[in-house]
Amino acid sequence: MKIDLEHINRAFESKARLGIMSILSVNESADFTTIKNLLGLTDGNLASHARSLEEAGYIESRKQFVGRKPNTRFVITPAGREAFAIHLKALEDFLKNRPL
Amino acid sequence: MKIDLEHINRAFESKARLGIMSILSVNESADFTTIKNLLGLTDGNLASHARSLEEAGYIESRKQFVGRKPNTRFVITPAGREAFAIHLKALEDFLKNRPL
Repeated sequence: MKIDLEHINRAFESKARLGIMSILSVNESADFTTIKNLLGLTDGNLASHARSLEEAGYIESRKQFVGRKPNTRFVITPAGREAFAIHLKALEDFLKNRPL
Repeated sequence: MKIDLEHINRAFESKARLGIMSILSVNESADFTTIKNLLGLTDGNLASHARSLEEAGYIESRKQFVGRKPNTRFVITPAGREAFAIHLKALEDFLKNRPL
């Protein structure tokens, strides 16, 4: 029995990260509050996942003022887009090829 | 945009756990060393993942002596089989329905 999990990327293991990367892979960018609400995360939770994804080079944060309020937007990086595509393919392969 | 991650189960998030549950869902049982080698895990890594899955009620461990040597086997529980099936279905749905 061969279980090929090699290309499943630890950086995307949690469902919160799956969600963040999915949102950013189909939007130019998305701001903190939008992602938080879409995924039902807490501020702290989203902040720590986003920081890890940023440190891995998969997303970038853009900070700006909207009126008098600070606003953080995130964008996926080319490396993030590629790594996430490989991860999803690995999940698909795992599901397709798993022993039944 | 709706991102449905609800039925993705945190207990199975890591690829090690995906591997453990896959092996146990298609074998009557599997022993510690077999699982460790199949997944390329360390003793400590597998032991901690297995303990969490056991505490969640998804697998059970059976300890016995084989000759003079202690041997640990794991089996999936009915609850584990059901929860893992729901998890895999949720992963499949996520992959199918994700915004492209």
